[in-house]
Amino acid sequence: MQRNVYLEEKPLPEAQEGYLNFLREKGALKLKRPPEKISAQTACGRVTAAPVFARLSHPHFHQAAMDGYAVKAALTFGASELSPRRLTLGVEAFPVDTGDVLPEGTDAVIMVEDVHQPEPDKIEIIKPIFPYQNVRVVGEDIVATEMIVPANHLLRPVDIGALLAGGVDEVLVYPRPRVVIIPTGDELVPSGTPDPAPGRIIDFNSPMLAELVREWGGEPIRYPIVPDDMARLEEAVRRGLEEGDVVVLNAGSSAGREDFTAPVLRRLGEVFAHGVAIKPGKPVVLGEAAGKPVLGIPGYPVSAVLAAELFLRPVLAALTGQEVPARDKVQAVLSRRIVSPAGVEEFVRVKLGRIGERIVATPLGRGAGMLLTLVRADGILRVPRFSEGFEAGSQVEVELLRRLEEIENTVVVIGSHDLALDIIANFLRLLFPRASLSSAHVGSLGGLMALKRGEAHLAGTHLLDEETGEYNVPYIKRYLAGVPVVLVNLAYREQGFIVAPGNPKGIKDFKDLVREDVRLVNRQKGAGTRVLLDYHLRQRGIDPRRIQGYEREEYTHMAVAAAVASGVADVGLGIRAAALALGCDFVPVAEERYDLCFLRPYWEGKVGEWLRAVLDNPEFRRAVEARGGYDLRDCGRVLYIQEG
Amino acid sequence: MQRNVYLEEKPLPEAQEGYLNFLREKGALKLKRPPEKISAQTACGRVTAAPVFARLSHPHFHQAAMDGYAVKAALTFGASELSPRRLTLGVEAFPVDTGDVLPEGTDAVIMVEDVHQPEPDKIEIIKPIFPYQNVRVVGEDIVATEMIVPANHLLRPVDIGALLAGGVDEVLVYPRPRVVIIPTGDELVPSGTPDPAPGRIIDFNSPMLAELVREWGGEPIRYPIVPDDMARLEEAVRRGLEEGDVVVLNAGSSAGREDFTAPVLRRLGEVFAHGVAIKPGKPVVLGEAAGKPVLGIPGYPVSAVLAAELFLRPVLAALTGQEVPARDKVQAVLSRRIVSPAGVEEFVRVKLGRIGERIVATPLGRGAGMLLTLVRADGILRVPRFSEGFEAGSQVEVELLRRLEEIENTVVVIGSHDLALDIIANFLRLLFPRASLSSAHVGSLGGLMALKRGEAHLAGTHLLDEETGEYNVPYIKRYLAGVPVVLVNLAYREQGFIVAPGNPKGIKDFKDLVREDVRLVNRQKGAGTRVLLDYHLRQRGIDPRRIQGYEREEYTHMAVAAAVASGVADVGLGIRAAALALGCDFVPVAEERYDLCFLRPYWEGKVGEWLRAVLDNPEFRRAVEARGGYDLRDCGRVLYIQEG
Repeated sequence: MQRNVYLEEKPLPEAQEGYLNFLREKGALKLKRPPEKISAQTACGRVTAAPVFARLSHPHFHQAAMDGYAVKAALTFGASELSPRRLTLGVEAFPVDTGDVLPEGTDAVIMVEDVHQPEPDKIEIIKPIFPYQNVRVVGEDIVATEMIVPANHLLRPVDIGALLAGGVDEVLVYPRPRVVIIPTGDELVPSGTPDPAPGRIIDFNSPMLAELVREWGGEPIRYPIVPDDMARLEEAVRRGLEEGDVVVLNAGSSAGREDFTAPVLRRLGEVFAHGVAIKPGKPVVLGEAAGKPVLGIPGYPVSAVLAAELFLRPVLAALTGQEVPARDKVQAVLSRRIVSPAGVEEFVRVKLGRIGERIVATPLGRGAGMLLTLVRADGILRVPRFSEGFEAGSQVEVELLRRLEEIENTVVVIGSHDLALDIIANFLRLLFPRASLSSAHVGSLGGLMALKRGEAHLAGTHLLDEETGEYNVPYIKRYLAGVPVVLVNLAYREQGFIVAPGNPKGIKDFKDLVREDVRLVNRQKGAGTRVLLDYHLRQRGIDPRRIQGYEREEYTHMAVAAAVASGVADVGLGIRAAALALGCDFVPVAEERYDLCFLRPYWEGKVGEWLRAVLDNPEFRRAVEARGGYDLRDCGRVLYIQEG
Repeated sequence: MQRNVYLEEKPLPEAQEGYLNFLREKGALKLKRPPEKISAQTACGRVTAAPVFARLSHPHFHQAAMDGYAVKAALTFGASELSPRRLTLGVEAFPVDTGDVLPEGTDAVIMVEDVHQPEPDKIEIIKPIFPYQNVRVVGEDIVATEMIVPANHLLRPVDIGALLAGGVDEVLVYPRPRVVIIPTGDELVPSGTPDPAPGRIIDFNSPMLAELVREWGGEPIRYPIVPDDMARLEEAVRRGLEEGDVVVLNAGSSAGREDFTAPVLRRLGEVFAHGVAIKPGKPVVLGEAAGKPVLGIPGYPVSAVLAAELFLRPVLAALTGQEVPARDKVQAVLSRRIVSPAGVEEFVRVKLGRIGERIVATPLGRGAGMLLTLVRADGILRVPRFSEGFEAGSQVEVELLRRLEEIENTVVVIGSHDLALDIIANFLRLLFPRASLSSAHVGSLGGLMALKRGEAHLAGTHLLDEETGEYNVPYIKRYLAGVPVVLVNLAYREQGFIVAPGNPKGIKDFKDLVREDVRLVNRQKGAGTRVLLDYHLRQRGIDPRRIQGYEREEYTHMAVAAAVASGVADVGLGIRAAALALGCDFVPVAEERYDLCFLRPYWEGKVGEWLRAVLDNPEFRRAVEARGGYDLRDCGRVLYIQEG
């Protein structure tokens, strides 16, 4: 078997615009199935294939617009306080309620408030009324034959109301474009497989792509997984071209030994582009077969979402005469430097937060396989093709994935990672549906530096001062001199060795770390846990260079525990809760204090108000304690206040 | 039977906030049904009832991140161009594709590009690799037990992907709130009734409210129509309280003789408010029964939509821990004066258009029954409770109903009404999916004045100059002196008498209009058709005061034809197409020229480009001619250019 030719690197605008033009020329931007006539009552969210004209007027008769009495206006002319006019009920005046039909011969309605009833069968009025006063005339809203909505109109609830009001019960709409999704790859197992073996990957891309298709107005048809076999893939694509309006293959779109998308498409139709200069998402295949669009979407999940968004979505829109709405944008200040390869347009996921007057953008992990970063992202920062990135502090334009309003209500915490932050996030949302929490893990010292640069509302920190044995305060005095902050305790927690179940290597003390059969997984520089480790090593005179794996750095307790659980390392220093979470054993070595350091204006504003409510919540405290290794005796207590 | 007490006028913020607090105190802002466990694959659009934690890590094994050879990194240390290192395939180096599991004992992947193969079973490398290079380690994306999404989170496609990637196949979500919709009123007939009798109204509110409920994440349950009978209504509400989480009655929420919502609710539970100081939508009923929210929504369709939006939507959101997103807003310049009663907050529907540097807001019809205005509206302008309105030219804040992007691509035509404008709107959208047309009907002269004030891109005009017999140009010279414009013909069209089928009154000439048995329906002052009528009356020396109905003014040809078709009037002057559309007869009296007058910068920009393409389109021309009475011999021809 052979590797494909290397991928092209078509620039994005050329690829997007060019692909639509290519499909248009091939006649592949038109649905092959005819429009369908459906009940107007079920047409919400569908797109009209023809203009819709009213069949009836609305109202279709003259209608009382008030509760009162219908009369012929001419009979009231001349009425005044001095010469009241009496009208006989049932002959000259007829009681009507709002919405009633105007009785024959009447053309106006006197409001009930303007009427006296001196005799049982008569009413008296003291002012005249003009014709059609308090009457909704025929067609006031809709005139029969008037156009209610044009073709290519996405029907909303009010449109449905207007169609039905205009006597239109059926409406001609485009069929929802059927998108056949073909998952390919020997390694794939269907979602729902309880414990996939090593080497097996859950096919979560198909259901995710299916939901995107649905969101974009299409009808997904998911095929079973096709193994890496050219003939079987070709067979599946052939079937997809019969059944669907668009065919999507996921993955096999790269140029590896088993990437068959491009070769199959070349056999059945034509490839417009193989490879686009974007990151992630480069190995995309754009083509056409049997007059229908066929797309090869890369396998890494972030690439898959991005490629679908950039190429599949415009195709679906065009098939029903729609355009993809542009994302809202916001100006933000970049909190960290981004270096990006020139020659590709990179899509960097960012967290956003309102810190004082600025919206601050903090880049998230950039790997194409890091789907959770897309779940957590507030926006996308595009690094243009001929740029090599942005310096920290740059003014950048960010495309919003969440509403600006939500971002304004996001609490931004940057610093040391603790599992309790997840629990804070959850309770914050429960107690204040408007609020949310965004946390970036850069270690305790990184968090304090972020506060200094005004990039967060608060930082999580557990920095032990070797000289005084005191936590956090000496660091705040040193690194945040002159910055007004409030230090509040979150919890005391146990730190210790996270080891494999049963502690097979018998690790009990720091001196065990230098053993030849012991591999460490470490935390990054600036992390409180790293400071703790270095403190203990120095106290014992242990040279870190003698420790295997000392240079292998992870950014979270969970990642350390995961390294131990998977056998990559034998030991890491971390918190008990992380060990428990991944079924590891735990050898305690110290209790440490984990605090939240607030910039003072935020502690005194809504951020502080929200977080105090969470920290004081008994259910929150129980939830944290249940994780194991936490002591909340001082939770919420103010430990230190620094004036500005 | 008795009328209810008069309605309150509770201020809106008090009603909105107060109602939620009232429900909260009654325990009615919590769903009575427990959360449900559903397949993650079907959970898109649902709201989590608990935080979701990963069951598996993703990846759950060390995975090759490149195509190449898996090796133990230590074996490569020291490799260089001078001392290449050879590794035996199947023993020290193993071929892997991206995504493959790392073979036992290996910890790094050498890219295929960096490898030579001097012997069949050996590879050679000339640089070392460090541990975990080109490897996706366990948990790189998601670490088992990590929180993927918090509670009260609205699940999106990427969330579904992340849940499945984290081995979460089932997720605990709130049930969709069930909203029982009870249509009430003796006058109602179900949608789909082909030709409702006079006095009967199609119940289009129920399906419209149902679609709104669905859009807001609820599950609508539509009840059959309940007549105006207190006992039967009470029975329906009782049943609704058993079956639904929320009960909505439509209409019967006012204080008329047959408005039973408030009385029924007082029997079954409690009324928090009856009447809110808003327009439209005042007669709303907000209450609670059996621990569930019950709302009486007014019957006029615009009131119904507005009341549902203001009161039902926040209730539905709160039931699943959500907040209603605020609408985007835009600053606009008001094109016409708005007078609004003090004491109520009025919601005025407006059309928006980008005219030069400004967004111009033009108010639409304000009747609570005018649903089509809501279909056509681009935004809502709130006139505050203690304001009596805004002057023309005021800077106002408008809540957007369409995306600003769409508004930027809207062609704004203000002026005389012609049916061909509907057809232009339709073809514009077909040819340019991004574009749309907004037309406001204020008569020919009104259109020219709107151009002068910079409130439109173009105006439709057919103004006959009595002295010269020339169309439009004399008026442009007089009213638009110094304004650069381009005048383009749309069509010649027949004007004549629109009369009842068979012309029962035998109307043939203008002198018939003064007959005692003939009632005219007229067009408003400034309309080209009104100018035409006045011209002919003057030529014949007919005093308009002798004509019955001369003062009854309508704003469109269709409204004139509707008045004749319904018997309100015997004759009106108008175009043949309007007569044909409503089945009236037509007595031609003149051919007139209908032109489009463009402000010159727009004629030369994209607006002109779009409209030229439409006017030149043969299918468009056929569609207009098919309406009858049109001659397109000069369609698209530039007739006059005025320099600035």
